[in-house]
Amino acid sequence: MNLKDYIRDIPDFPQPGILFRDITPLLKSPEAFNYAIEQMSQKCQNLQVDAIVAVESRGFIFGAPLACQMGKPFIPVRKEGKLPGETVSVAYTLEYGSNVMEMHLADVNEGDRVLIVDDVLATGGTLLATTELVEKAGGQVAGIGLLIELEGLGGRNVLGHYDIFSLIQY
Amino acid sequence: MNLKDYIRDIPDFPQPGILFRDITPLLKSPEAFNYAIEQMSQKCQNLQVDAIVAVESRGFIFGAPLACQMGKPFIPVRKEGKLPGETVSVAYTLEYGSNVMEMHLADVNEGDRVLIVDDVLATGGTLLATTELVEKAGGQVAGIGLLIELEGLGGRNVLGHYDIFSLIQY
Repeated sequence: MNLKDYIRDIPDFPQPGILFRDITPLLKSPEAFNYAIEQMSQKCQNLQVDAIVAVESRGFIFGAPLACQMGKPFIPVRKEGKLPGETVSVAYTLEYGSNVMEMHLADVNEGDRVLIVDDVLATGGTLLATTELVEKAGGQVAGIGLLIELEGLGGRNVLGHYDIFSLIQY
Repeated sequence: MNLKDYIRDIPDFPQPGILFRDITPLLKSPEAFNYAIEQMSQKCQNLQVDAIVAVESRGFIFGAPLACQMGKPFIPVRKEGKLPGETVSVAYTLEYGSNVMEMHLADVNEGDRVLIVDDVLATGGTLLATTELVEKAGGQVAGIGLLIELEGLGGRNVLGHYDIFSLIQY
């Protein structure tokens, strides 16, 4: 199965000049969606993963089924103020302004090897912030798993010393 | 397995007087998380579900694994401006102000029986808006599946003529 067949290109979204890679056709195909989760699971077989961390909100779409399938804890990273327990937090810069993400401190056990899952790797800013959260909480980043990698945007350099895999590259 | 054992009560969150039901211990237990998805799947066996709709962002955590397990299309409902294709949209009122949710029009086929999935049923406002989206797009609401139902808040009345199931009640 070629997963790229299930990604739709939308020119000029959200802004003129941007070619948006729309994952919703993949989500609408149970065969493609399950195949993607299965591929992610296979790609991290040698990473000794103890837990899955995913970033609100599209990361949840891949992280949650992957955690279920692998039988690993699912740990959500959310925007500031949404998680009720004691959290670790990190501020990160967006194109305009900045944001704060949080994770429950107690969700990661000391030394746990954590796989971070998201839909798209672009510039890597959000994912780099997520690695900081995991490490602040005492975990190790076992790897970063992505559906799509936009190779021209330099995300892999930003995340240089982590193990990264992606199922689709542009 | 008693799923309530995996819900943590947090008093006075996000505001004084509110008892927050925290689902993150359930997500951290692969046994409990998979059991919840399995229970949801069983509870909609007679609903003739063609597709799963889930609302950003906590709905994704349950809707995506359920769609994978049931082998049904997964359709995300998102905040305004996030979906790149032609959408249907609906405005709904929150405690303070209002919000707009969108769904890709083409994601629902005419007459499809759609299960709407979310983590918590409280007052039912967001879920009622989601039923409107499904119907605007030409679908039928086959049912509404929830992890938690807060019975004192009247959500079931607001959604009175739909089939509703929940795994945990307070």
